[in-house]
Amino acid sequence: MTSIRDVAKKANVGSSTVSRVLNNSGYVSEEARNRIEEAMKELDYTPNELARHLFHKKTGIIAVLVPTVAHPFFAEFVDKTEVELYKKGYKTMLCNTAKEGNAEYEYLDMLNRHIVDGVISGVHSLDVEEYQKIKKPIVALDRYLGKNIPVVTVDHVRGGRMAAEELVKNGCKKVLHFRGSLAVESPYHDRHYEFDRVMKANSVEVYSYEQEWNRFDNEFFATVIEDIFSKDISFDGVFGVDLLCIGYMNEAMRRGIRVPEDVKIVSYDGTYVTRMTEPKVTAIVQPIQELASVAVHLIDELINGKPYQDKKVMLDVKMQTGGTTFH
Amino acid sequence: MTSIRDVAKKANVGSSTVSRVLNNSGYVSEEARNRIEEAMKELDYTPNELARHLFHKKTGIIAVLVPTVAHPFFAEFVDKTEVELYKKGYKTMLCNTAKEGNAEYEYLDMLNRHIVDGVISGVHSLDVEEYQKIKKPIVALDRYLGKNIPVVTVDHVRGGRMAAEELVKNGCKKVLHFRGSLAVESPYHDRHYEFDRVMKANSVEVYSYEQEWNRFDNEFFATVIEDIFSKDISFDGVFGVDLLCIGYMNEAMRRGIRVPEDVKIVSYDGTYVTRMTEPKVTAIVQPIQELASVAVHLIDELINGKPYQDKKVMLDVKMQTGGTTFH
Repeated sequence: MTSIRDVAKKANVGSSTVSRVLNNSGYVSEEARNRIEEAMKELDYTPNELARHLFHKKTGIIAVLVPTVAHPFFAEFVDKTEVELYKKGYKTMLCNTAKEGNAEYEYLDMLNRHIVDGVISGVHSLDVEEYQKIKKPIVALDRYLGKNIPVVTVDHVRGGRMAAEELVKNGCKKVLHFRGSLAVESPYHDRHYEFDRVMKANSVEVYSYEQEWNRFDNEFFATVIEDIFSKDISFDGVFGVDLLCIGYMNEAMRRGIRVPEDVKIVSYDGTYVTRMTEPKVTAIVQPIQELASVAVHLIDELINGKPYQDKKVMLDVKMQTGGTTFH
Repeated sequence: MTSIRDVAKKANVGSSTVSRVLNNSGYVSEEARNRIEEAMKELDYTPNELARHLFHKKTGIIAVLVPTVAHPFFAEFVDKTEVELYKKGYKTMLCNTAKEGNAEYEYLDMLNRHIVDGVISGVHSLDVEEYQKIKKPIVALDRYLGKNIPVVTVDHVRGGRMAAEELVKNGCKKVLHFRGSLAVESPYHDRHYEFDRVMKANSVEVYSYEQEWNRFDNEFFATVIEDIFSKDISFDGVFGVDLLCIGYMNEAMRRGIRVPEDVKIVSYDGTYVTRMTEPKVTAIVQPIQELASVAVHLIDELINGKPYQDKKVMLDVKMQTGGTTFH
């Protein structure tokens, strides 16, 4: 471990002079200061990381914004993103924005205040203009945050089509479709439009249920399921995000409705929870590891001033065959 | 927004002098420097957050260490901890330590390098001595990390007893007991000892299966379940963490073993996944919100130099009655 004395010796000054430079207090000649800073660099002396950052103008910290890390999709994304960032020498600052209104702006402001070098944002912003103002490295996960901010997403059109075709193939005639909030500008709406298109082309009746904005908690999902069953409409097919589909399946089974005989279910995201139920849920799986790798690659490129070719990186989805449909 | 000119005016110096202080370059008299720092404080001027931290000697960042945030217990803990830290004005730096060996030490070192003000550690350290060396704010979640580091935990003795009594009451005679790794110094072993004690007192045969250290991923849990069923021993009761119990339940059902008629299951942690299966799992529930609140309260006290009374804060567990046992 390099000590303050090693630095002083190399720079040919007293230890107290090095201290003055480190603490930014008292007089040090320009020449001595230069020699000390040179010695610190050569010896890789970092007594105080913050002081080092002041020299380098980088903090090595990336903020990752998600609505809530308690949700399995965002938990897996944050988990893998943190590991990828770590491999490139970055630390991860986590922000759950669903808790209240201002957290998102506050973290964007941290970009301007040089606390973080970049932001990976998977949150539901209602104010895209705020992102436009910032000329710093930002990468969006499945959100349109402005024309200069690259988006990492999946082929939602194909995902929506695969889900729809699975239900059509299973003979569904009256389907419940849980949709994401229309208040959010996101590529994910594509899957809903495509799903509806295929359903219409096959004369399948679709009952749409729009989720609330910015709610990803289990309490909310429980009230949605309760609400749906209180309407007393029977469906022979269901399409929606993992947690809603699982909630629907469990409530159906409790009421003696058989899965997949009476109702077929295809969920979206395909996180690990779809493999924790019996039967396993048929699902469209998002490649979370790849989403994380690409997001980290892009933010690293932006931080290092490299131009990126694509405004939108679209990854492929795949089908997980479970026991909630017939194959 | 305060500008560099406002600071210069208030301190009665030129803007270039303020710049020299901010950039830590060139000569500035002690007197002028003091006036500039005073003016900055009064005007709350923060052109560069890092420079501000150098004055204040605090970064407002807390590192939260967990094996992996993809695991539902740690996901919920990190989620609630981030919200509690945010309420007190702290930012959360997240580290998943299961990915490789050195991350844990690196984050502890960040305490010494003044990047973070404190560490909340829920990780399985094999080297408690490393923690002992550090005289900075550290709070442990359910781990013994050294005599000076406060621990937030639950009443595992009561939890183990409640689980055991539930299985005894249900008439179990041959029980599978998934244990945490003995390589970890943790209060959680108490639940295992108490579980075994109650079982012995009731002449119930116990088959112990010790989990591997530092493995919390679904791939690992799947291999454990496969391993257990390959041994071809039948059990009429199972006790272990949520994901193992759910894995066991699903595999049992696939093999035509009925739950709870043929095998009773009680899981530990009681995270949301135990409410996503059909039947819902009977579980001992850890109060994750309270664990987070207490951990954040303690780290804040330590950072502010307040002495803490208790080395160990023990919260209560409760029983979630599900359909995997008879009541």
